[in-house]
Order: sequence, then structure tokens, then C-alpha cells
Amino acid sequence: MSSHHIIREKQEPALIIANGEACSMDILEQLLEWSPTVIVLDGALERVLELGIKVDVWLGDFDRSFSSGKNYDDYPLKKVHTPDQNKTDLEKAFEYLLEEGFPAVNVVWASGKRMDHTLNNFHSMANYGRKLKIVMIDDYSVSYLLPYTFQKWYPKGMPISLMPMGEAKQISSSGLFYELDQLDLRLGERTGSSNVTREEGIVKISYSSGHLLLMECHD
Amino acid sequence: MSSHHIIREKQEPALIIANGEACSMDILEQLLEWSPTVIVLDGALERVLELGIKVDVWLGDFDRSFSSGKNYDDYPLKKVHTPDQNKTDLEKAFEYLLEEGFPAVNVVWASGKRMDHTLNNFHSMANYGRKLKIVMIDDYSVSYLLPYTFQKWYPKGMPISLMPMGEAKQISSSGLFYELDQLDLRLGERTGSSNVTREEGIVKISYSSGHLLLMECHD
Repeated sequence: MSSHHIIREKQEPALIIANGEACSMDILEQLLEWSPTVIVLDGALERVLELGIKVDVWLGDFDRSFSSGKNYDDYPLKKVHTPDQNKTDLEKAFEYLLEEGFPAVNVVWASGKRMDHTLNNFHSMANYGRKLKIVMIDDYSVSYLLPYTFQKWYPKGMPISLMPMGEAKQISSSGLFYELDQLDLRLGERTGSSNVTREEGIVKISYSSGHLLLMECHD
Repeated sequence: MSSHHIIREKQEPALIIANGEACSMDILEQLLEWSPTVIVLDGALERVLELGIKVDVWLGDFDRSFSSGKNYDDYPLKKVHTPDQNKTDLEKAFEYLLEEGFPAVNVVWASGKRMDHTLNNFHSMANYGRKLKIVMIDDYSVSYLLPYTFQKWYPKGMPISLMPMGEAKQISSSGLFYELDQLDLRLGERTGSSNVTREEGIVKISYSSGHLLLMECHD
């Protein structure tokens, strides 16, 4: 692999496959089409290899054995051993990508199954989403932490939920059906879910502090 | 129905069936065995009736039609119309139960599918979990808001996650493998997931402020 190739590679988002519910193969194939660097978290390895996906990096504390009884010591992949008990496997994967110089990552299989893992995975966007462009994708949702000022083109009638992680202050919007004007949102009290774009065109969202997720969801 | 019967009924937890991923029939049958008052949220009605479950209350804004084209105007159930756009269907169901005098509720189908709904549903425990004893149950997790002092008997090696909703301060524990001593947890920074009970016996947890979920999860 030439150094030219390596530099090109890291301009593209990496792909993390976590250990929650599998997404549709359609989504996975779309993401793999760009030949991203694929990082698989700990116990998910066997499920991923069974799908015929080429794995570049396997990351975790490797403290559990697989039900198949196989070990993967001789597989042609990079093993990154991360035993820190105070961080989740997904957080360790974000730190690995930051160290390696990746600017962006898509994350699949991060929701579903154990709800404590799902919540931790979503919450980790608050802590890492300013250093690394993280997009979490499952069959019903595309989610990412908003920068303090954000704009993006959307079609008319696109469902958009704004979800504070903890809280987000002085949120303003233009282009939404229920516009926000210097509104504070706080988890458990008031969130901005089930909004929708008013027309085809640019939606703008700004806020002054805290953490705000944008979620494009559909039934 | 005698008034005696109504009083008895409301001492038992009600059951809310939300509109996320269905849980296993085993879980549902266990919960239905106690003949709880069953409240179904809006779009879930058809999926619930197809399972042959008797529904007492159907709650929502009824703004969508079912794909089957059926309407349920003549069904023998109580329809509670709740058009408030600033509250989720689940929050409206909690308010209905509080008005009706129920002390407790189990909630199923509140996770999975749309992640914005899942997050909102979990977050709503922060706002309602002190007035109403709410337990959320899915195939992998049992979750509830902890009172400021809590104790419960557990078997040895039971996985327990402590998850701050926003933040929770001065958390102390006894009976866990990784004990907490006056620790503050904050969403996105530090959570107490993947803990485990040390021995068979009583686990005690206390905290001074904020909101702390206890989640009993398994793979």
C-alpha cells in the first residue's frame, strides 16, 4: 500500500461496526462501497466475518470467547488491545481514529440489543462529536452532533428531531415547521422531536452551548 | 365493575404498550398474567390487537390511519384523545395514569425502531419517574429511575448499569464489583455501565441529586 493511498484513505470516513443490532445489508453495502477502513468492536467480529466483510482493525479487550470456540489470532487484521475499563469499546475506537488522524466516521450496529450500550453509544457523541465527525446510522435513523451553526439542504416534509444531550441553549432554526427561537432544550423536560422541514431548501440551526443531536428518522 | 374492584386494580402496575420494537411474547405474557390495565399508544393498536391482547385504553392523537385501512371506532376500549404537540404519547400516558391514580406502570415496546422515540421514552423517566413507579422492559434490559436511596436483593454476578440522565451527584454503592464512593456521573462523560453485583445479597445505592437510572441488562 503506497503512502499516497494511505493519505487518500484517511480523508474518507472510517466505518465502525459496533456490537448492537445489525442494520439492513442495504445500508451496510452502501457504506462499504466507498472501501472505508473497517473497525469492528470486540464481540461483533464473528458476526461481521460471517457476512464476508473485510475487517481492517479489531478493537477491544478480547476478554470473551466466541460461542463458535474459534479464535482469530491468525486472521489478517490489526488487533488493537484496549483494556481500559473506564471507557466503552466505542469510545476507545473513537480515540484510535483520532490518533490515526481520521477526520470522520460512520457508525453502524450501535443501537438495539442492550439498552445500556445503546445509551452509552449515543451519549458518546456529546464527548467526541466535536473532535471527530461521527454519524450513527441504523434502519430508522441517521444521527449526529450539530456544530454550533449548521446548515444543510433537505427535501420538503423530512422528519427531523433535535435532541439535547443533557442540555442545549438558545437554539434557533429556519426552515422547520415548528421553528425554534432562542429556545433551551433539556433532556427529560423538553426536546425537539418530531419536527419536519417546511419546504425543499436549506435548513439552518444554531445554538450557543451544550450538545444538540440532529436525528433524521423515519418509521 | 364494583368500586372495590377498581380500587384493587389500581394498586397493581398498569401496562403501557408503546410503538417501538415488540418484545418477546414470553415477557408480554408474564406481564399480562397479572391482568393489568393495558394502555396502548396510538399507532401500536393494530399490532397489539393482532396478538389477541385485550386493550383497556387507546391513547394518542389518532392523526394517522392504519395501513390495513381499518378504523377502531367501534372497539370496546376507552379512547383518550391527547393532541398536545409538546408531549410525547408516552408522556401523555404517564399523565393519564397519574390522573387516574395509578402508582406504578410497566412499559414495553418503548425501545427499538426510531431512535428519537427511544431516547425520548427513556428520558421521560427523569421527568415522571418520581411521581410514578415506571419500569421499562425489553428483551435485553429492565430499567428504572432510582430513588435517592435504594436497596434490592440480587444474585451474584448480576450485570448492573448506572446511567445518569443528564447528571447524578455523590453516588455511593455497596455490593457492586466496582463500588462508587461519592462519585458524580454525567451523561457523555462518565457513566457507570457494565458493573456487576459482587455477592448474592442486598445492593445499596444512594445519590444526592440529579437523575440516575438503574439498568439490569444481559446479552
